[in-house]
Amino acid sequence: MARGRVTRLTACDVRFPTSLGAHGSDAMHTDPDYSTAYVTLETDAEDGLKGYGITFTLGKGTEVVVCAVNALAPHVLNKDLGDIVGDFRGFYRQLTSDSQLRWIGPEKGVVHLATAAILNAVWDLWAKQEGKDPRTLSSCIDFRYISDVLTEEEACEILQKNQAGKKEREAQMLTQGYPAYTTSCAWLGYSDDRLKQLCTEALKGGWTRFKVKVGADMQDDVRRCGLIRDMIGPEKTLMMDANQRWDVPEAVEWMARLAEFKPLWIEEPTSPDDILGHAAISRALAPLGIGVATGEQCHNRVIFKQLLQARALQFLQIDSCRLGSVNENLSVLLMAKKFGIPVCPHAGGVGLCELVQHLIIFDFISVSASLENRMCEYVDHLHEHFKYPVLIQKACYLPPKDAGYSTEMKEESVKKYQYPDGDVWRKLLAAQGK
Amino acid sequence: MARGRVTRLTACDVRFPTSLGAHGSDAMHTDPDYSTAYVTLETDAEDGLKGYGITFTLGKGTEVVVCAVNALAPHVLNKDLGDIVGDFRGFYRQLTSDSQLRWIGPEKGVVHLATAAILNAVWDLWAKQEGKDPRTLSSCIDFRYISDVLTEEEACEILQKNQAGKKEREAQMLTQGYPAYTTSCAWLGYSDDRLKQLCTEALKGGWTRFKVKVGADMQDDVRRCGLIRDMIGPEKTLMMDANQRWDVPEAVEWMARLAEFKPLWIEEPTSPDDILGHAAISRALAPLGIGVATGEQCHNRVIFKQLLQARALQFLQIDSCRLGSVNENLSVLLMAKKFGIPVCPHAGGVGLCELVQHLIIFDFISVSASLENRMCEYVDHLHEHFKYPVLIQKACYLPPKDAGYSTEMKEESVKKYQYPDGDVWRKLLAAQGK
Repeated sequence: MARGRVTRLTACDVRFPTSLGAHGSDAMHTDPDYSTAYVTLETDAEDGLKGYGITFTLGKGTEVVVCAVNALAPHVLNKDLGDIVGDFRGFYRQLTSDSQLRWIGPEKGVVHLATAAILNAVWDLWAKQEGKDPRTLSSCIDFRYISDVLTEEEACEILQKNQAGKKEREAQMLTQGYPAYTTSCAWLGYSDDRLKQLCTEALKGGWTRFKVKVGADMQDDVRRCGLIRDMIGPEKTLMMDANQRWDVPEAVEWMARLAEFKPLWIEEPTSPDDILGHAAISRALAPLGIGVATGEQCHNRVIFKQLLQARALQFLQIDSCRLGSVNENLSVLLMAKKFGIPVCPHAGGVGLCELVQHLIIFDFISVSASLENRMCEYVDHLHEHFKYPVLIQKACYLPPKDAGYSTEMKEESVKKYQYPDGDVWRKLLAAQGK
Repeated sequence: MARGRVTRLTACDVRFPTSLGAHGSDAMHTDPDYSTAYVTLETDAEDGLKGYGITFTLGKGTEVVVCAVNALAPHVLNKDLGDIVGDFRGFYRQLTSDSQLRWIGPEKGVVHLATAAILNAVWDLWAKQEGKDPRTLSSCIDFRYISDVLTEEEACEILQKNQAGKKEREAQMLTQGYPAYTTSCAWLGYSDDRLKQLCTEALKGGWTRFKVKVGADMQDDVRRCGLIRDMIGPEKTLMMDANQRWDVPEAVEWMARLAEFKPLWIEEPTSPDDILGHAAISRALAPLGIGVATGEQCHNRVIFKQLLQARALQFLQIDSCRLGSVNENLSVLLMAKKFGIPVCPHAGGVGLCELVQHLIIFDFISVSASLENRMCEYVDHLHEHFKYPVLIQKACYLPPKDAGYSTEMKEESVKKYQYPDGDVWRKLLAAQGK
């Protein structure tokens, strides 16, 4: 049983100055400071457990998300945790459908990121108390706006069917882990020398799947993609990521030129809102053997529903901090299963790997029951700030063994990187004369 | 020439306690307090003119939008107004594509509402200085993500073609105004008696087009729709608005039941993100003679592009405060023209009528050149707080005659309704023991 009444909710603006090293740079986000709106939930339960939740941001604007968390706080404070998870669908609906607040979403952008941070903290706390995954999963899903594609009955059926073979898949995860790919080698702002060095190291470390950022300059892309394909050889897997840089016709032209480097997918070729555009690009690139991947900026389950309906993607990339936590991600995993589309989550950032490993291992054990065409993104950044960091072994995520959602940060990290008053930022801002 | 360097940008949280009277209530927004993030721009120009811009909100969360306006402010402060409007497309792109801030959108939700408020203020100031509509309109549009449907050349062509007959249409607007419909009679929270009384008054005032809120309870809808259809008679126009209450199959079933009351359209039958869902509903309701209308919560031009591509709506409802000001609304007006879909803007709220009259009268004069199937929403609320309120004559909007975007509020209103420190809120919050 879930225990305790929520007595306190705090939200911190924590930023890491990653832009100083061009980490995370791509065609649209040239100087991201990987950051998080970091939520802590406390209850009056005697166990003294706290729930930690994050949503990922790129620096500026984190204070806006913190402001939105505070606006949502009255829906959480003084609630009994048992009541929250006892009617988790209803609680989800309450957060996303506040009669006044929904206008500034609905279920998208800042308020939805804030919702995710809060719900991630609830899941962390609940999972810690229970010490295991909760059973009544489909009762956590809000089927509003997706019932034309997935009903609660269908969801239960999928989960039920996969009881068979579950033990074997659990054992497989514990020994081998979930296959990952790396984005750490080829950020757009890295020099060729750095790219080569990181690629050499990754190959030594056993990595077989690599992603390269493209989309800003064609000549540059041809050179960098050639370089990385040469280094990894023809057999290993290469993915490309344009981070929404192109219009629809431009995406098709650009990728026709880069097809010689045999990418498995082109990620975010255009606006994350353009379902029909992604469908057109998918159709145009299919003869070239290039799939379309998207999802990290798809703002809710309604967009994913349509991407699946329109056959607009061949790889679906859920995001643990943009969608409404486990609740909404569950609905997307189940829809992807129904349409037979592999889920290859977005990760990296701050804490995204820590969160998403739970979702993707669950997907394998209980939903997809397959590893075909599946892998999870990995970026080797900022894990040192977490109390329960991910464990990578031979380019695979090993299942997390501590209870909870792995989102608790080290106290000293939160303190040091708090914006604008933490030590790191005080010094940086002073150096910039601010 | 645009004059002055922006020296100051302020954003106020102004809220009107409309929920006390159930004004604005619908199936999803049961207790809205009509509110605005109110932006004031000042420059160092000698003319002393200020730019006023708003975005519309429903109470809670206005502080989040204000926070986002402040996060965007560095892109505006110390800029020369001439440089801003001289490369308005570039400035638009800068606001919407900030490398860090775009993550919490992009171009949707809170940051996009904040962008709208700022840009609305820029247009207000620019229009006041120029004393007339600007000419180089297509240069203000960011065609990113819509070039597969509308190119700059096509946009110019449409505007060019409509030079013919422009004078006549201007004269027609000055004498007759732009046709409007009223939503004031039938908010969901009004009693039948109140509905009847307001309807009687509206009929006396010459109104011929009425909108009724539906979607919460079928029995209630049947009674209220019957009541209003009886009062207005078979010839006058009735529209229905479900404010996103339904899933796709539910929308079709519900409207089959309400078809007997002969609605022209059903507005927002489901999630504003569900393009394919709206297309399915459109196909199902076409044989019943019911059109689909949506737009007030469609978050950017990419969504409108797809609604048009998928033939998902028969009436397109732009919003002057959710889209990125005149710039983005222009692109939607032009796409609607290309697809032959009539634009019937969303208005009401706070100041939406004041803003949108400019857009719709411009649409008639320079883009659509037609009044067929066209009308603009009108709600008789809160106009008394504006310095240049709309003028309605025989159920038509008369063209605004003062320079600017009509968004300046009366100083005493801003002061009195500021949240939480204005007189009105201090008293209300004290009465609620807060």
